[in-house]
Amino acid sequence: MKIVVPIMPTSLEEAQALELSRFEGADIIEWRADFLDKHSILTVAPAIFEKFAGFEIVFTIRTTREGGKIELTDGEYVTLIKDVAAIYSPDYIDFEYFTRKEVFDQMLGFSNLVLSYHNFEETPENLMELLSEMTNLTPRVVKVAVMPKNEQDVLDLMNFTRGFKAFNPEQEFVTMSMGKLGRLSRLAGDLVGSSWTFASLDNTSAPGQVALADMCRIREVLDAD
Amino acid sequence: MKIVVPIMPTSLEEAQALELSRFEGADIIEWRADFLDKHSILTVAPAIFEKFAGFEIVFTIRTTREGGKIELTDGEYVTLIKDVAAIYSPDYIDFEYFTRKEVFDQMLGFSNLVLSYHNFEETPENLMELLSEMTNLTPRVVKVAVMPKNEQDVLDLMNFTRGFKAFNPEQEFVTMSMGKLGRLSRLAGDLVGSSWTFASLDNTSAPGQVALADMCRIREVLDAD
Repeated sequence: MKIVVPIMPTSLEEAQALELSRFEGADIIEWRADFLDKHSILTVAPAIFEKFAGFEIVFTIRTTREGGKIELTDGEYVTLIKDVAAIYSPDYIDFEYFTRKEVFDQMLGFSNLVLSYHNFEETPENLMELLSEMTNLTPRVVKVAVMPKNEQDVLDLMNFTRGFKAFNPEQEFVTMSMGKLGRLSRLAGDLVGSSWTFASLDNTSAPGQVALADMCRIREVLDAD
Repeated sequence: MKIVVPIMPTSLEEAQALELSRFEGADIIEWRADFLDKHSILTVAPAIFEKFAGFEIVFTIRTTREGGKIELTDGEYVTLIKDVAAIYSPDYIDFEYFTRKEVFDQMLGFSNLVLSYHNFEETPENLMELLSEMTNLTPRVVKVAVMPKNEQDVLDLMNFTRGFKAFNPEQEFVTMSMGKLGRLSRLAGDLVGSSWTFASLDNTSAPGQVALADMCRIREVLDAD
C-alpha cells in the first residue's frame, strides 16, 4: 500500500517553501492544483515538478463539484490537464469521471488516468455500478472516495474493493471511506486491494486522513511478520 | 475498544518480577495461567491479583486443545476455575465453550464468562453458527479468534461481527482474525463492534498481535476527531 501525500500550495511562494525533508515516507505526491487560481497553475507548475522530481506525482485539479476549490468549465478543465501533461508528463492525472463525462473522450489518449469519483455526502447505493463503469474503462487507477453514514457503509466499501480487485487483479483501485468513521479503511489497503492511502502533512485534503508519520508507523506495524 | 494485555509468567518469580509501569495504556490484564503447571496456579494467584488489583482481570486457562500450554481433564479445568473464582473473583473468566461443552452446565452460575472459541487452522465455514450458539447463551463476552486463509476470511470475520453486534447490541463480542493477514481486524473493534483487542508487551500470546505502545497510538489515531 503506497502513501500519497497531497500538497496544496496557494501561491508560488508557498510551493517554493515546501520542504522536501518533511515528505520522508511518502511514496507519491499529489499536487492539488485547485488551491491556485486557474491562471497561476502553469506558473507554479515548474516549482512543483522540479522540487518533487524524485517522487511519482499525481496532477489533480479537484473542482468544486467534487469537493475541490476551483470552478472550471469542461473546456478549461481539459485544456489545463493537456497543457500540464504536455510539458511535465505527470505520472498520474486525476480525472473526475462522472462530473466530466462529456469530455472524457478527449482523455482517451492518456494511459495514466486516475478516474476518480468523490461523494462527500454518502456512500451511494449504486456504488458497485459506478465502480463497474470506471473499471470497464481500464484506466491506470480507479479511485473512489465516499462518505459513510454508518459502520456498514465502511465495510461495504471495503468488501466491494476486495471483490473488484479479486475479479480485476490487474486493475489498480484506490478506495476510501472518509471521515473518522471511515478511517480504518485508510489502513486497509493491503487487505482489500486498495493500492494507495492518502496521508497529510499539516492540513488534511479530505476528511479522516491520517498524518504521514502515523501512517508510516501503522503500515510498518501491519507489514511486520 | 479496550486493550487487553496478556501476562504469561512461568513461575512465581516471573509473576513477582512483572513491572506495573510497563502496562501503561492497557485497560485489562489477561492472566494466561496455562503457562504454569496446574499445581502452581493457586500458588501464583495471590501475586497476580494483588499486583494487578488496579486492572480488570481476565482469568484464562488456555488448554492445548485451543492452542494453549496446559493439559487438563474437564474436572481439573472446572475445579481450577471455581477455586480461583471463589478466592479472587476475577472480572472475567475465559471458558473454552466448544472444547468443554460437557461441563458448561457447571458454569451457569457465573455471570462473568468469556465464552471463547479459538481456531488456529482456519476460519470455519460454520462460524456464524458457532457465533449464534455462543451468543444465545448470553455470556458476559463472546470471544472468537480464528485463522484466515485469505483476505476474504478476514473481511467475513469483520462482517459477521458487525452483523451480530447490530442484532445483539447489548452483547459484548471480542473477535479477531489472527496472523499477519488478519492483523487489521485487531484495529477494527470500534468499526465492527468488537469490544477488546489483545496487545503484547514482549512475546505475543497469539499470532498477529500488535505491541501495546503501537496499539495505544493506533487507537488514538483512529479515535481522533
